[in-house]
Amino acid sequence: MGEFAAIERIRRLFPSPPPGQAWIGDDAAVLDDGLLLAVDTVVAGVHFRAETPLADVGWKALIVNVSDIAAMGGTPGHAVVAVAAPPDTDLDLIYEGMAEASATYGCPVVGGDLANANELVVTVAVTGRVDGAPVLRSGAKPGDGIYVTGPLGAAAAAGYRVRPQARLAEGQAARAAGATAMIDVSDGLVADLGHIADASGVGYELDRVPVAEGATEEQALRGGEDYELVFTGIDLPVGIRIGTCTADVSQRLPGGGWEHRFS
Amino acid sequence: MGEFAAIERIRRLFPSPPPGQAWIGDDAAVLDDGLLLAVDTVVAGVHFRAETPLADVGWKALIVNVSDIAAMGGTPGHAVVAVAAPPDTDLDLIYEGMAEASATYGCPVVGGDLANANELVVTVAVTGRVDGAPVLRSGAKPGDGIYVTGPLGAAAAAGYRVRPQARLAEGQAARAAGATAMIDVSDGLVADLGHIADASGVGYELDRVPVAEGATEEQALRGGEDYELVFTGIDLPVGIRIGTCTADVSQRLPGGGWEHRFS
Repeated sequence: MGEFAAIERIRRLFPSPPPGQAWIGDDAAVLDDGLLLAVDTVVAGVHFRAETPLADVGWKALIVNVSDIAAMGGTPGHAVVAVAAPPDTDLDLIYEGMAEASATYGCPVVGGDLANANELVVTVAVTGRVDGAPVLRSGAKPGDGIYVTGPLGAAAAAGYRVRPQARLAEGQAARAAGATAMIDVSDGLVADLGHIADASGVGYELDRVPVAEGATEEQALRGGEDYELVFTGIDLPVGIRIGTCTADVSQRLPGGGWEHRFS
Repeated sequence: MGEFAAIERIRRLFPSPPPGQAWIGDDAAVLDDGLLLAVDTVVAGVHFRAETPLADVGWKALIVNVSDIAAMGGTPGHAVVAVAAPPDTDLDLIYEGMAEASATYGCPVVGGDLANANELVVTVAVTGRVDGAPVLRSGAKPGDGIYVTGPLGAAAAAGYRVRPQARLAEGQAARAAGATAMIDVSDGLVADLGHIADASGVGYELDRVPVAEGATEEQALRGGEDYELVFTGIDLPVGIRIGTCTADVSQRLPGGGWEHRFS
C-alpha cells in the first residue's frame, strides 16, 4: 500500500473536523481561530544521505514544516522537535542548523524530546497562524490558472544536497491575491499538482514548466524537494503561470513522485 | 553526555521566551494566549519491546503527550502524528490504538506524516489550552508539600506492558487547588521530582511513597512510566501527600531514572 492510500485509511479512523476547520489531508491542519499545525519527519538514508552534514539535516527538518505553513498562506509560530538518534550522534550540529533556519524564518524552537535509536529520525511540528481563510488543496476550479513561485528541478539536479528555502512571503502573497488552492512541491510537481487535482476534483493541462538552471525537464516535473509553491486561481498577479485546471479529472500527466510504501 | 545535559546545551541555541511564556524545559511549552505545545517520541526497542502489540504502541504514543498537557494543568486540543516505519509495518494497528486513546482523552488526530525507516519511531505533538496560569516545574518553594495522584511502580511491575493513563482531571484539579509546580512521572519519581527540584531551586524529603499493588518500593521510586502526576503546594486538598520541599537543594534521594545518552 502506498503512503497516500494509507493516509486515506487512517483518516477514516478519526472524526471529521467541525465546519471551518480542515484536518488530515492538507499541508497543515486548520484548527480553531486560524491556528495551523503541521508535522514532518526526515529519516536518515531516506530523506538525506549518510554524508549529508548534520547541520543541513537540522535546517531541512525545520524548513519542510515552515513550507507547509507557507502552503496555507500562513505565518509560522513555534516549533517543537523530536530527535531519535544513535548515541554517537553530534546533536549540536543538528540543532545549530535548525537554529539557523529557525532564526531565518522567525519560528523559534520551544520544546522537544530526545531519544536513542539505531538510525537518525528528526521530527518537527510547527504551529502557524493565518489572517482569514487559509488556502486549502481543495479549492481549485476548472478554468483556474496554475502558477508556481519559481523554476523547478534544482534540488534534484543538485542531488538534494542544497538547503531548501520556504516560500513564506510568496505563499502569503498568493493567498492575499485570491489563490483558490495551494501546495508545496515536496514529492514533485506532477505528484503535488495531482494532490490538488484529487482534492479539488479537477484535471489540468500544463503549457510550460520553468526548469531551474542545470536541471532537466524530468527533474522539474518529478524531482521534488524544491519547496516552491504551486497554486491556482483566476488571473493572479503573482507567480509564473504554467497551465490551467480542467473539468476532466482524468486529464493529467502520468506518473507521480516519491511515495513511501507500507504493507 | 546525558539527555538532560544535551537539552541544556540545546536551550542556549534558541532565544528566550517573552514574559508569560515558557519554552524549552517543561512538560509542554507555554505560548501566547494559553496555548500549550508538546512533543514526545516512542522508539521500538527503547520505549517498547518488539512483542508489544502495535495498538498499544499507538495508544502510548498519544497518551504520553496528553500526560504532558495534564502536567501543566491543561486540556488537550489536537494531535499530529509522524510515523517512521519499516515497509512491512501494519500501520492500521498503530492508528487504531491511537484512535482509542484519542477518543478517550478528546484529542483528535488532525494530521501527520508517514515515512519509511528501518525501525519504528512514532512521534506525536499535541496542542493544549489552559485557563489562566499553567503549572510549571519551577514554582515549588521550601515548605511546600509534595503530592502524587496515585500509587507508583505499577508500570515497572508489569514489565511496562500496560496501557498508561493520562491524569487529565487530576492535573486540572491540582492547578485549580493552587499547585505551585507539577510534572508527570515518566522517568521515575526520583528523576522527575529531581526535575522539579532543579527548576525550582529546592531540595525535598519524602515521608512515604505509595507503592502500587505488586510493585516494589524501588519500582515505585525509580521505575517510571506510571504517568501519575507529582505536584507541590501548601495544604492541597487533592492527591496523596508524600513529602515536603526543603531549602537545602542538595537534600534529595540519590540516583535518577532512565536517561538517553549522546556523545
